[in-house]
Amino acid sequence: MKNLILILLNLFVCSFLLPAQTLTVQEKLGYPKDTKLLIIHADDLGVAHSENEATINAMLNGVVSSASIMVPTPWFSEIASYAVAHPKADFGLHLTLTSEWKNYKWGSLSGEVPGLNNKEGFLYSSVDSVYMSATIGEVEKELRKQIEKAKQFGIDFTHFDSHMATLFGRQDYLKLLIQLGREFKVPVLLARTGPRSVFNVNLDSFVTNNDVFVDAIYTANPDNFKNGMESYYTGVLNSLKAGLNIFIIHTAFDDKEMQAITVDHPDWGAAWRQADYNFFTSKSCQKLLKDQNIHLITWREVRDKLLR
Amino acid sequence: MKNLILILLNLFVCSFLLPAQTLTVQEKLGYPKDTKLLIIHADDLGVAHSENEATINAMLNGVVSSASIMVPTPWFSEIASYAVAHPKADFGLHLTLTSEWKNYKWGSLSGEVPGLNNKEGFLYSSVDSVYMSATIGEVEKELRKQIEKAKQFGIDFTHFDSHMATLFGRQDYLKLLIQLGREFKVPVLLARTGPRSVFNVNLDSFVTNNDVFVDAIYTANPDNFKNGMESYYTGVLNSLKAGLNIFIIHTAFDDKEMQAITVDHPDWGAAWRQADYNFFTSKSCQKLLKDQNIHLITWREVRDKLLR
Repeated sequence: MKNLILILLNLFVCSFLLPAQTLTVQEKLGYPKDTKLLIIHADDLGVAHSENEATINAMLNGVVSSASIMVPTPWFSEIASYAVAHPKADFGLHLTLTSEWKNYKWGSLSGEVPGLNNKEGFLYSSVDSVYMSATIGEVEKELRKQIEKAKQFGIDFTHFDSHMATLFGRQDYLKLLIQLGREFKVPVLLARTGPRSVFNVNLDSFVTNNDVFVDAIYTANPDNFKNGMESYYTGVLNSLKAGLNIFIIHTAFDDKEMQAITVDHPDWGAAWRQADYNFFTSKSCQKLLKDQNIHLITWREVRDKLLR
Repeated sequence: MKNLILILLNLFVCSFLLPAQTLTVQEKLGYPKDTKLLIIHADDLGVAHSENEATINAMLNGVVSSASIMVPTPWFSEIASYAVAHPKADFGLHLTLTSEWKNYKWGSLSGEVPGLNNKEGFLYSSVDSVYMSATIGEVEKELRKQIEKAKQFGIDFTHFDSHMATLFGRQDYLKLLIQLGREFKVPVLLARTGPRSVFNVNLDSFVTNNDVFVDAIYTANPDNFKNGMESYYTGVLNSLKAGLNIFIIHTAFDDKEMQAITVDHPDWGAAWRQADYNFFTSKSCQKLLKDQNIHLITWREVRDKLLR
């Protein structure tokens, strides 16, 4: 008992002496410093029935721990209904300012906003077009509409991220995203390095110790796809470091619907998404996670432990 | 030769003596009075890749002679591209004020118009909700946007009709539709009797001899589907009368996409649409048309001969 009191006293003193930022995110979450935490995160829910069905399967029967929903997409209602009926499943919002596929399109929720929609009335195909057109006011109006619609449908969203990383590449957009995360008390996908890093945007004067940063983001690129997804993911899992890691993946079936949506675009196409699905529902992936002592985690756990 | 001159003279005199309205529509189109003309028309293009692909196949390899496109739908761009690349194919506009499926939705092109969109931001599910909400001004604005978008994409639309018959059931909507048909010089699907008839709307003082009416509309109902589409369509073809007839059908594949769109709704569902596809791409249907001396016709022929 005396020892316990000493330990607690020590912890209490340390908590004042040590600045909060010296704690790793895994420690803030209550895990030992050497814990390899991993969120396996599927993007693009709502874009297709194929994407919804495959991702739900990969969450139920595979190791996908979290996913995010695109509110302006045609199949939003389907995944929203599922999310409401399965409140423990971990769904965030994949805030969307682009409509990138050739023959299958959606527009903004804001209606006829020239900065957000192209002359055909759809969201722009490319991130650069968004940057050239959309004012921060228009972006804020649209993001708030997407968030409000998700709330209206009853989705208990766990985090915010950004379709095609649009909100990560421009300082005013990213500040807005972080502010929205603070306002709705959800973590935002932020990293200091890696493919979704904010290294080209100076946030030093903006972020605080309360903003959650992941330590590493891993996501396959076209070369990884060509060389085999299993090889890429296996390599990453075998060398994963302690900290809060995230895999950004895209799970869908290589079926007629997905082939038609991703026509003429093999990168992030139907076969790519089937390969992601196959790996993250495989026994070999489950074994790797166990062998490497990797602890799967959700954005909900991060949200509820650190921000609420 | 003398006989021929007499015959021609007789025809010439008759054309003055007979008022124009006594000519049948088949005669106006240049066919003998006893001709059984038939438009085999597929609705709902744009709603799904499955619907687009099946209908294109049924036009190329089956006997579907005409189809109509829903402009606000997610797959509009796909069928618009096809229409522009195949200018001889016969596509009209299936003007759309509803979004009826459970998990798969679209909104108006007009944006945030309370009379057109429900509180979730989608077009209403039911025709009655449209009637209770949408003013004629809102309807006109939306229909003009759909027409303008089709023109912007380069679609040489051949006719107008109305998704879920919404525009046929209320006098002010129907007058607007007829006016738009006159303005854009395209026929509108009008019949004095039958399932899409205007019998509950008094148009006597509004229509003129220049407005094209079909003589009969045939479309399967849930009982026909239960008893077998082949039986229904065979019966209709075997008893078709002279005049301008139209079949309203829905061709899509009974695949995962279409099953997910039409979930919980077997009427006009995926299996129904596959049954339509099967019959209208069958050799038995082709043989029936030949045996019964039925002449297939397009809306484009009607448009170009009677309205341009």
